[in-house]
Amino acid sequence: MSFELTILGSGSATPTPERYPSAQFLVFADHYILIDCGEGTQVQMMRYGVKSFRMDMVFISHLHPDHFLGLPGLISSLSLKGRTEPLDIYCPKGLQEILDVQFLFGEVHLSYELRFHIFKDSSENIEFEDKNLSVLSFELSHRLACRGFVFKEKKTPRKIKKERTDASKLPPEAYSVLRNGKDYIDTEGKTWHSEDYTIPNDTPFSYAYITDTLYMPQLANRFADIEINTLYHEATFMNDLKEKAINTFHSTAVEAAEFANISGANRLLIGHFSSRYKDLEPMLQEARDVFPNTFLAVDGARFE
Amino acid sequence: MSFELTILGSGSATPTPERYPSAQFLVFADHYILIDCGEGTQVQMMRYGVKSFRMDMVFISHLHPDHFLGLPGLISSLSLKGRTEPLDIYCPKGLQEILDVQFLFGEVHLSYELRFHIFKDSSENIEFEDKNLSVLSFELSHRLACRGFVFKEKKTPRKIKKERTDASKLPPEAYSVLRNGKDYIDTEGKTWHSEDYTIPNDTPFSYAYITDTLYMPQLANRFADIEINTLYHEATFMNDLKEKAINTFHSTAVEAAEFANISGANRLLIGHFSSRYKDLEPMLQEARDVFPNTFLAVDGARFE
Repeated sequence: MSFELTILGSGSATPTPERYPSAQFLVFADHYILIDCGEGTQVQMMRYGVKSFRMDMVFISHLHPDHFLGLPGLISSLSLKGRTEPLDIYCPKGLQEILDVQFLFGEVHLSYELRFHIFKDSSENIEFEDKNLSVLSFELSHRLACRGFVFKEKKTPRKIKKERTDASKLPPEAYSVLRNGKDYIDTEGKTWHSEDYTIPNDTPFSYAYITDTLYMPQLANRFADIEINTLYHEATFMNDLKEKAINTFHSTAVEAAEFANISGANRLLIGHFSSRYKDLEPMLQEARDVFPNTFLAVDGARFE
Repeated sequence: MSFELTILGSGSATPTPERYPSAQFLVFADHYILIDCGEGTQVQMMRYGVKSFRMDMVFISHLHPDHFLGLPGLISSLSLKGRTEPLDIYCPKGLQEILDVQFLFGEVHLSYELRFHIFKDSSENIEFEDKNLSVLSFELSHRLACRGFVFKEKKTPRKIKKERTDASKLPPEAYSVLRNGKDYIDTEGKTWHSEDYTIPNDTPFSYAYITDTLYMPQLANRFADIEINTLYHEATFMNDLKEKAINTFHSTAVEAAEFANISGANRLLIGHFSSRYKDLEPMLQEARDVFPNTFLAVDGARFE
């Protein structure tokens, strides 16, 4: 299955014209997912050619302004364009109240339904599950209640081997049995072995999104069990401001890289950069010294 | 006194990367005034070099999302930068409730005070007055309660004529009398005529902001009494969509120009353009055919 991630905002609390606040758009496992929605996200979606109209799920990590202020405008604009499909919003308690009061005083009547799914307080939760995708959420360590997410493909059925020309002789009902890794015995008692007729499909892919948190090595350990492919981890500061990172409940680029190492991720994306850093190359270098396969998740970057 | 107006957003309900939603920054009569604050205003302020930190007044016309969604982020960012001066916000009922619930759930504690001044329901009100500036508000005709504004310099005292060398013989207490246009009689009974010793100062300047409304010729008539110099009037549609303008409680470029003619304004700025218009020249031409001194209030434009 395809994985396409577009970075819509890579800034932190104070946005700049070059770095909008946090927002990412993920096309994955038959879903169109918005992760956080800082101010200006709807314009960033246009700027970077994202299909906002197909969006079916929104995940909001926490209620600091730089992570959700773009949502009321985006929701209103989709309504003006005549959206009818419901939109599922996974969020902390409070977001619905915030939207309700705006739409009340603005007399905004949406053309579609918002379905709110409020995060529970536990350290780890399954937020969503269907035949293609599961989404887990994890408690992070920030000033305000904040959660990270893992988007994970479901294990996909095995594929029929193309080189087995006698596969055409398989009874129709055998296919799903063999693709699920089981042997099939036909009405004449003949056994068709799954191993002979099928090969494994692609390994299920997973993407983890970790923003606004102190460095949490214990969570990185937990992620090692989940098998993370691509990891996004906030890197608000460089290593010389580690003290400041701790005081503001944020992480450094080096800590993000250490998290990637412990979790066994294949690839690390860093973002949520403090506006003090004009040139991000030194920060990238700090992270790459610890975890070489690191990339900058700057505005407009696309990862596949 | 100087007048400097920066257009931060010229779009309507649906913003685009070229046209942000409504926002203008006015430096005038010793005040730094933000008029409406659509989503993304804080970034537009940086983009166009506006001194957001000196802002002392905000006027919000109405609570449709494209006119206020940028305010929570801007207010939060000013707090992160350590602002201590209070900020006066002139707005419809509801805005304070909207901000309160966001700051409550986001645990945002501002470093400065917000002072809310809620609009009354009357057709015309004085919202603010000091020695340099008065601000009037007017009821417009939109789907939602919406107000327009006139920012007017106070009448400034006359100036002493430089060529009257005998002005140095004037008793000190005569100056303010003569500058206020009255004659002064000194202790010896001599009359000093104001006309002889003073000339008029610059005519007080005024700026009117009219957004989101049906065409209101009766208001244009009222404006003729006030003497408007520069008029901003929304022009969401061109003339062929006059029907649509009426149905959505908006105006056309021709109506904006007619408003300018009736009000006797010197200069017309049009904005709040529907996103359907990529090229605005035909719209400008339509307005100029009725009122020649018309200009497009596009993002980043500056008027002095």
